[in-house]
Formats: sequence, C-alpha cells, structure tokens
Amino acid sequence: MTSFADINEVSGGVLAAQGFVAAAVSSGIKPPPALDLVMIHSQYPASAAATVTRNVFRAAPTYITEEAVTNGKARTIIVNSGNANAGTGRQGMSDARQMAALAAEATGVEVLEVVVCSTGHIGDILPMDKVAAGIDQLDGRLSRANPEEIARGIMTTDTVPKHCAVEFTVGGRGARLGGICKGAGMICPNMATMLCFITTDVAIAATALQDALNWSVARSFNCISVDGDMSTNDTVALLANGQAGNETITGAVSEDYAVFRAALLHVTQDLAKKIAADGEGATKFVTVKITGAASYEEARTAGRAVTNYSLLKTAIYGGDFNWGRIAAAVGSSEVPFDPDRAAIKIAGITVFAEGKVQDFDLARGRAQMAAKEIEIEIDLARGDESLTLWTCDLTPEYVHLNAEYDASDLAGAEAD
Amino acid sequence: MTSFADINEVSGGVLAAQGFVAAAVSSGIKPPPALDLVMIHSQYPASAAATVTRNVFRAAPTYITEEAVTNGKARTIIVNSGNANAGTGRQGMSDARQMAALAAEATGVEVLEVVVCSTGHIGDILPMDKVAAGIDQLDGRLSRANPEEIARGIMTTDTVPKHCAVEFTVGGRGARLGGICKGAGMICPNMATMLCFITTDVAIAATALQDALNWSVARSFNCISVDGDMSTNDTVALLANGQAGNETITGAVSEDYAVFRAALLHVTQDLAKKIAADGEGATKFVTVKITGAASYEEARTAGRAVTNYSLLKTAIYGGDFNWGRIAAAVGSSEVPFDPDRAAIKIAGITVFAEGKVQDFDLARGRAQMAAKEIEIEIDLARGDESLTLWTCDLTPEYVHLNAEYDASDLAGAEAD
Repeated sequence: MTSFADINEVSGGVLAAQGFVAAAVSSGIKPPPALDLVMIHSQYPASAAATVTRNVFRAAPTYITEEAVTNGKARTIIVNSGNANAGTGRQGMSDARQMAALAAEATGVEVLEVVVCSTGHIGDILPMDKVAAGIDQLDGRLSRANPEEIARGIMTTDTVPKHCAVEFTVGGRGARLGGICKGAGMICPNMATMLCFITTDVAIAATALQDALNWSVARSFNCISVDGDMSTNDTVALLANGQAGNETITGAVSEDYAVFRAALLHVTQDLAKKIAADGEGATKFVTVKITGAASYEEARTAGRAVTNYSLLKTAIYGGDFNWGRIAAAVGSSEVPFDPDRAAIKIAGITVFAEGKVQDFDLARGRAQMAAKEIEIEIDLARGDESLTLWTCDLTPEYVHLNAEYDASDLAGAEAD
Repeated sequence: MTSFADINEVSGGVLAAQGFVAAAVSSGIKPPPALDLVMIHSQYPASAAATVTRNVFRAAPTYITEEAVTNGKARTIIVNSGNANAGTGRQGMSDARQMAALAAEATGVEVLEVVVCSTGHIGDILPMDKVAAGIDQLDGRLSRANPEEIARGIMTTDTVPKHCAVEFTVGGRGARLGGICKGAGMICPNMATMLCFITTDVAIAATALQDALNWSVARSFNCISVDGDMSTNDTVALLANGQAGNETITGAVSEDYAVFRAALLHVTQDLAKKIAADGEGATKFVTVKITGAASYEEARTAGRAVTNYSLLKTAIYGGDFNWGRIAAAVGSSEVPFDPDRAAIKIAGITVFAEGKVQDFDLARGRAQMAAKEIEIEIDLARGDESLTLWTCDLTPEYVHLNAEYDASDLAGAEAD
C-alpha cells in the first residue's frame, strides 16, 4: 500500500507547476471591465487529457477539445465566458476552430494542441472580432505572476474563486499539480457549466494521464450535484509538461502512477467540493458516504439518487432530521440492496438498521441538522465498494436565482 | 383502427361501475375528524391488477398488495392515511397482514383478495387498535352513495379531490370504468405517495387486466413528475367485476381489449394530469411531447430528462422563454439523437431546428410563457414513437412546503 502522506497543499493554483504561464483579459464579450478571456499555456510540450460533457446538445468547443486530446498532447487552453457557443450550428463549429487557430498562432503551437472552452448564453454567435483582439492582448501578458487572477478570470456566478495545488514526490523528483475550476452548481442562472483546468510538471504519457483523469473525475466532479442538471459545456482538461524531470510514467500500474493519481484525486476532490459548497442559493454542505456497494457504478447510482432527491434537499434546508426521506431517496435508485441489512446514519447517529428505526436521541439529531455541514452515511451491505458524494441544500434562493430573466437580453436563451 | 369516439366521461368516480360499494371514516390515525380510512369493495368476484413502487425501501402494504394480485383476483381495498407503515420492519409486515385479515373478515372475502395501502409518516408503528375499530365502522357504512367522499377520504396535501370515470361499449354491452387518486406530486411534505384505485364492471381476465394496466400506467402515472422523487408507497390497483355482462376479454389482441385499454388510458391520463396540475407549490402546468423517438423507453428517457430538469422548471416559473434550458435538458438524457436534425417548439413556436436557433418572434414567445399552461414539443428525428409527459413548475413555495417540520411530531421521520 502506497502512503500518500507526503501530498501537501501549496499556493499557486493552476500556475503552481513549473513551465506554465497564463493571463486573463476583458475582451468585451461581457460588459467591460469583466474578465472574459483566459489563456493557459505550457512553455514545453505537454501530454494532455480531458473529459467533456455527455450532453447530446453539447457546445462546439467541446468537439475541438476532444479532437485535441485524441492526439494526447496540448499546450494551450483558451477559454471565454459570457457566450457558450452552443446551439450555434456550423457557424459555432467554425468559430471554435478559429478560436483554436488564433490561440495556436499566438502561442506558437499546432492547432491540434489547443483546448477550447466556452461558457455563457446558449444560442448566440460568438463575437469573433472581440475574441481575436482579446487573444492578441493575452499573448503579450502571459506570465506566472497572478494565479489568483486566472481563477477569477473564469468565474461567472461563483461567489469565490476556486483553486487548489499540491506538491509531492514522484520517481524521486519534487513535482506539483494544481488547478482552477468554475461552476456554482452543475448549472447557473446566466452562465453555467463546470470548467476545470489542471496543470502538472510530472512526466506522464497521455494514455496514463487520461486513465488517471477518468478515475479521478469519477470520484470528484461526477460525485457532486447541485441540482442534478448536466450542462452543454462541462469540461475538465489536464496538461502535463514533464518539467519535474521524473522518469516518464507510462502505464497505470506503477507506484509513481499511484502517487500521481492520488495527487490528482486530492486536487479534483478539493475543487469539486468547492463547487458543491458554492452551489446556487446553498446554505448547507452535504456529504453522502455510500459503503457496502457491490461496484463503483452501484455506489454512484445509489449516491446520486440521494444527492439529487429534491425532497431530502429541502428537508436539509429546513434543518429537518428526516431519515425517511433518505430511505426513500436511496430506495428509489433501483440498486437491489436488502433493506433489512442496510443501515443509515445522519451526523454519526444510526437512525435505521436491521430493518427498522433505531432508538436514537431525536434532540441530538435535530441539533446536528442545524449545522452548516451534514454527513449522511448509507451502508448497502452488498459488497466492499464505497464512494463519497457531495451536494448542497435546495433553497428558495435557488429558485429565485434561476427564475429571473433580464428581458433586455438577446433572443438567444440564457444558461448553458 | 378502432374508433374510441364513444368513450364518454360520466360522474361517479370509483363508484361509477356496477357492483362496487365504498366508505370512508375517521379512525383517529390522523386527528379527528379527518377521514383516514377508506374501504372499496366489489360485491362480486373480481379480476385484479396492480402496479407498486419499485423503491427498494418500499412499505409493508405494497408487499401484501403484490401478493394479492399474484392470484389475479381481489375484492376489497383497504387504505389508511396518516401513517405509511414503511421502515417498520417485521412489525409493519405483521400489521399490514392483520389489516388485510380484518378487511377480509369484515367483507367476507379471502385474505388474499384484499389490497392494502398506507400513506403518511415513515417509521411509525400503525396504531392497530384504531385501524381495527375503523374497519368495524367501515363495514356498516359501505354504499354507492358518496363517491366524492371516497375521493376526499384518500386526500392528504392534495388541494382538490381527483376522480374520473367513463362509459363505453365493449362486446355490445355498456360498461363503466372509474377511479380516484391522491398525490400532490410524487411526494408531499407530510403525507406523500401517489395512490390510485380504479374499478370497472368489464369482464376481463386478470392477465389481460394486468397487461392493460401496465401499458396505461407507462403512459400516464409514469409520465408525470413534480420533483422526480419516487415514494415508498406508490400503488395503482384495478378491480374488474364483470357486471357489464360482456363476453370475458381473455387476451391482449382483440378489439374489445383495445376499447377497454383506451378507456383505462383515458381515466389514468386524466387522473395523472390532475396530480401534475396539483403539484406542490405549482403555478403552471407543463405538457412535454416527445416525437420521433426510436422506442417508448427512449421517448420516456428523453421526456423525463426534461420534466425533471430543475433549471427548466424554475425558468417556467419565472416565465422565461428559455429554449436553451430545454436543449440542455433533453441533451442530458443520453438518448443519442442528432442535434442537427432535432427540433424544439415552445407553445407552437419553433425555436430550434436544423442545428441552429430559428428566427422566432421573441415577444410572442414571452407572451406564451406567461400562460398557465405551457406546451413543449421535442422531435428527436430518430423514429416513429411518441410520448406525452406532464409536469409543473418549480417554485419557492415547493421548497417552503417541504422544508417545514413540526417539531412536536413523533421521532419517526415524515413524508413517505
């Protein structure tokens, strides 16, 4: 068993790793002076991996990103906010390609080494003149100076910038991995989308990088839910430029790979939890631990049934110590567990086990439910897999935020 | 093609068909004088069919009901509200069996001819002394006099009683089919659960009856969503006592079967729509028509992705003409349609087709979105199957209703 005790958090966010530079500018896609265009660039060739939304109505740039990482390498990430470039048909594809071409030219890389992301209104054509002028500006401003500004540059309705970085030792060399993300839930009132960009100086082959990313996303971003909705633009992209000087990790079975994956999990889980905690209108942060599942898929199915159950999320908002709603939620997942063997704990208090309600201290339970952080544990008693998921409460403020509409806006509908 | 023009609505609800009697009393499970115990009884042997929730944490009475209809016959339905008899373990099973035995004795039928349903708090043991005294009272009050009272007797947070009945001709004989249901959404703040009881005087074999019920439920109750949550107690039960005198319908391929199924669909869809329209906190009624699906399952998957999409339902509450949220919702279903061929209409206005936003009249669209009833049509352009689903908007009132908790309540959690 590898010990991961020496993965330590450091500052620097997406610029913590060696050999990466970045910049953010206000290009005018959003009303100035709001930052709306961000570039992240590796000064050295880099392995690349990405996961994008499975939404059928996904945005044009997600195709470009997918195409780029097919080759296993990328060096430049270009991101705009304020316009999702989704529902824009052939014009949208052409614009996303041009965005890649402009960023490639500016940073001296191949077009197929550019990751493109957009977030904002669905159905509006991108103002390519502004994007082009913005990329020109970005080119001259790339530096390692302002990691905080890069995290702010991709924010939309987020109330706080979200970043995390760690250092660790791999193959005897000191290495770093850091990232930023945006998203105040799976969705937001005007700008939606979960975007995450991670850089590392570890030397690792693209296939191993993609394996590690898939594994980590399955245990981090795919385990959070604000409202259960899936965006058209969600993307997680990861660049690894090898500047740590370790012997290149080529497969998914070595100790070095295990350490790298643990570092990646640390950062992706930290960022994912920050999104759930910053959920729209949220007042509480909820951790759902599924144990005793027969497989990862089963744990996730059961867990998502709980994190998406509106009635439970309103009870948590109301501070209601309501174990019945947890039972109904996990029972609705169609995972065929045995209710006579399953157990449910809220805030450490066993409320249901051996097929019946336990004799618990209701006053203590209610006191626990008044806390800002609530932990729910469900033992399915079927196997050895476990999974932790995170969500927030469902509040009247969530509805208010998402029901509002600025009638002066363009014809294209809001929110991706 | 059979013509169903002669299916006509009539009064009488669950007592419209010949040979059925019913009664409702206040037994004290809920504070008097609230009606909380209902009995429906066929004076003649009857075929029976039922569908119950697939929730793993389902309540004890759903097992009794399932057992009863396995034999294909049932004559008495006993229902209590105020206590779900869920999460009650072996005691709950024993109580549900005793409820069946008491109702069987009172009405002179076999124990296995009794359908048992409960709705209310999860985790409380049923007060069987009150249930027993209530069944005694019911026995002396069974009549055909008060169909409206029977509909009211199963209400919990419903704001209106829900019933529907039709008459039609089958095998040359006049026949009737009618039902009642309760449920203000899939769930409710204190009392949850969708329950539906249907009676008919058509002569039909139990297997054909179950086939027709499964088909109709798939196109009615399984097409409504208030919040996407599934209860522990949901049950639809259907008794057919043959008093219309038609030649018994034995299989699922005859013209008589087709007419019967159409009548059943009429009543189940009417009742299902009444539940969606009475959704907790709802201000709008939303119809979602999926066309061009490759199969029923695909249409349902796409449709439910739309009817469960919180962000769309808040937009509808806000009167926001937001086609982007519809695209994101149907795209999230993972049905592999081609977005370049799909089309989206809101209130008859085509907003998206041929891979791009259409040039529509936004002012007209906004005016339509202000209406109480909204129709969304999505053509997946993949096949010939279509399905209509119904839902309501997501409102701050929904959250308020479900966050409230009466701290003086019992330890058992609320809401099934």
